Amino acid sequence: MKLEALRIANRSARKFIDMGALTRLWNLVKNFHPVDIVSLMDHLVFREKLILFNTLYEKEKEKAAEVLSELEPEDSAQILKELPVEQISGLFHLVPSDDVAPILDLLPEEMKESVLASMEEKPSEDVKELLHYEEETAGRIMSPDFYALNHNTNISDAITAMQLEGDVESAFYLYVVDNEDHLVGVVSLRQLLFARPNTPLKEIMTRDVISVRTETDQEEVARNVADYNIVAIPVVDSENILVGVVTVDDVIDIIDKEATEDIYKMLSLDSTYRIQDSPITSIKKRLPFLMISILTASLAPFVVNYFKGTIQQFITLAVFMPLVAALGGIAGNQTIAIMVREIAVGQANWISVRKALLKEILVGIGNGIILGSVLAAISYFIIGNPILGLVLGLAIIINLFIAALLGTLIPLFLKLIHIDPALGSVNFLTMCTDTIGLLAFLGLGTLFLKYLI
Amino acid sequence: MKLEALRIANRSARKFIDMGALTRLWNLVKNFHPVDIVSLMDHLVFREKLILFNTLYEKEKEKAAEVLSELEPEDSAQILKELPVEQISGLFHLVPSDDVAPILDLLPEEMKESVLASMEEKPSEDVKELLHYEEETAGRIMSPDFYALNHNTNISDAITAMQLEGDVESAFYLYVVDNEDHLVGVVSLRQLLFARPNTPLKEIMTRDVISVRTETDQEEVARNVADYNIVAIPVVDSENILVGVVTVDDVIDIIDKEATEDIYKMLSLDSTYRIQDSPITSIKKRLPFLMISILTASLAPFVVNYFKGTIQQFITLAVFMPLVAALGGIAGNQTIAIMVREIAVGQANWISVRKALLKEILVGIGNGIILGSVLAAISYFIIGNPILGLVLGLAIIINLFIAALLGTLIPLFLKLIHIDPALGSVNFLTMCTDTIGLLAFLGLGTLFLKYLI
Repeated sequence: MKLEALRIANRSARKFIDMGALTRLWNLVKNFHPVDIVSLMDHLVFREKLILFNTLYEKEKEKAAEVLSELEPEDSAQILKELPVEQISGLFHLVPSDDVAPILDLLPEEMKESVLASMEEKPSEDVKELLHYEEETAGRIMSPDFYALNHNTNISDAITAMQLEGDVESAFYLYVVDNEDHLVGVVSLRQLLFARPNTPLKEIMTRDVISVRTETDQEEVARNVADYNIVAIPVVDSENILVGVVTVDDVIDIIDKEATEDIYKMLSLDSTYRIQDSPITSIKKRLPFLMISILTASLAPFVVNYFKGTIQQFITLAVFMPLVAALGGIAGNQTIAIMVREIAVGQANWISVRKALLKEILVGIGNGIILGSVLAAISYFIIGNPILGLVLGLAIIINLFIAALLGTLIPLFLKLIHIDPALGSVNFLTMCTDTIGLLAFLGLGTLFLKYLI
Repeated sequence: MKLEALRIANRSARKFIDMGALTRLWNLVKNFHPVDIVSLMDHLVFREKLILFNTLYEKEKEKAAEVLSELEPEDSAQILKELPVEQISGLFHLVPSDDVAPILDLLPEEMKESVLASMEEKPSEDVKELLHYEEETAGRIMSPDFYALNHNTNISDAITAMQLEGDVESAFYLYVVDNEDHLVGVVSLRQLLFARPNTPLKEIMTRDVISVRTETDQEEVARNVADYNIVAIPVVDSENILVGVVTVDDVIDIIDKEATEDIYKMLSLDSTYRIQDSPITSIKKRLPFLMISILTASLAPFVVNYFKGTIQQFITLAVFMPLVAALGGIAGNQTIAIMVREIAVGQANWISVRKALLKEILVGIGNGIILGSVLAAISYFIIGNPILGLVLGLAIIINLFIAALLGTLIPLFLKLIHIDPALGSVNFLTMCTDTIGLLAFLGLGTLFLKYLI
């Protein structure tokens, strides 16, 4: 839906809600795609969201259920908290269980219990099962709905069996299992459509099925789907028994989230930070990290304090301090960004680690020498002091070397000890480049002081 | 494929290449997924890549073609440049035309002409057509292979027609067109499988087809596929005539690339920077941006230079300069990262702009007051100078306010004038926070100088 149309719809929706004209509200949105209703809700205040959601529920429960599937789990939970338990469990029967699980998990414990108790056995079991896997694993995000049939089934029986099972949301493959339910093959629905009716599945199936285990990290699941260009990946348990499927739409969500997380974590930002949060919530989310940055940013002042005497004698050193710090920070942040992304999209591994480190250091020294020389020349021409140029140039070379070394090592080291390679690395690196850069600059300044004055 | 297996395969591959044992090399890789062969190649030097590729070509042209599809276009072009024209055009017949187009575009002009001339008419036309759309648009990345049938066709005729057309790589939908070839509906292959044979397509098709135009930006194409949870999106021309399809695997590549670009552009990094580049190439790619950063980083020294006299009289001000600069930079970068990501995933639009600006400013002031007070208190206890604490605290408040204001405005302004909101914004902001932060700090220091000493 185009932005302009959405903007107009939003204005009308607010008017209808204000007027209590709920039938007109329903007429406005009833033909909207659930995704567009969610976009509309994004720009309503909570009270308005609730009214809109209740209107959907009154008029067409299925529509309300579709909107629940599309909303962020946090938003769904916030709305459901206001509804009676029977209404919630009624809605949950209409929502795929892989979408129910994360919402349910956010409801207050007592409410969660009563909802699960009031749901029918089958869906309630499905949801409970998903909830027992760890967060951010394949088991947690998989859908327990998929087509799977024995490898001896022939095509026409397979189609009949699938018809009887009914429609499975976004199913593009039929998985093939052996007599012990082990996953042994996959057939695309396109192949089914084109094969002769009496062929057994095992004759047309692809045997090299790419699958993941229930405990596989969701990021690795996403990478597999992305790398092998498939639209769904089967999830198996420790005995290779098929237990679920992760579809590409979930994979896209994961990739988007991980990319945002990479950036946010690099900059020590809470990855749940959202633009819709209230100012108070935002301050609360950002403050702890800023407080930590007081600590990391307080190391450089100690260095400067140590060289107070030198600065006092040649105040021009103070003038160039921000330049040394800024250039080291910029070069280091670039290196960190490169490493974090290369690790994320799976390029940085084994052989590359040593190569990458060596290369970045060479690049750092190379750029340092060029940049340092340029700066030395400029400052010589402007200030007319060749020794100051030399000190500045050398400090830049040292700082860019440090930036390259630590910019590569910090993310790799964090990955090695199984911490997110992005986590706070920019803050930490800025601390190092500020400190070491100023140490080099003021140290060299002290060394050459008698030639400077 | 697991990393360990890949590592072993890589070692064997290099050994076989060194020994010239090309049949053993072929036996090693012949059952590998093309994606895994590409991973293997990533860690070979160019000469080895070429030998591996030629071995694939000798043994099984289809395998070589699949590898071409999976390689980055730059890598494919580099390899093909070494091959004779007939061999290239022969390979191109085996590669989908949406994968051929970007590779062809990277070949030398003369080679490109002769390859196109030596290809058969149909595929050559397809590729030429794709090449005439602008880069990074739906037209450029779409595949011209898809299933489309008239709305009056019944299901069994549709299946026969599709069978005759042959296999279409990763087709999950059948598109439905009217008598004038306008796109009017879509049927999933699952629906086809389950519908009664004599039903006409128009009775079972979904009429609200989500489609994009040939000139739609690839990022918007990706957002549509992601938002509406579909695995392929049809591309139509200005008259709503179906001309191609973009599939979800391409969408994932776009989302990955855009996320990397967002980060790289924020930090003024060339978005083609790759870890496999040689040190010389890397230096060339990074140097121009670092040179620009000399300019942006040179503004703050002017400010310090102006206040040389104040610093001379109270040298402790120089000690706290790095702290003021670092905190402003960190807070500003956080705000920019938030805005860039929110704009990228489509959250920041219309209504939110004003709200976001107001909110970020409130958050900036709020955090500034808290952080400033804490710092003022700490420095008072350590240095014992209440006025210094006051000056430092006020400077931090001003700097965090500026960081929030500009961190929000710079990306929004860049978007408004249709420049990538990420482009160099971190560098520019660091310049502003360094300069204004130091201006505030040293300015206040000058104002209160007589109480400081």
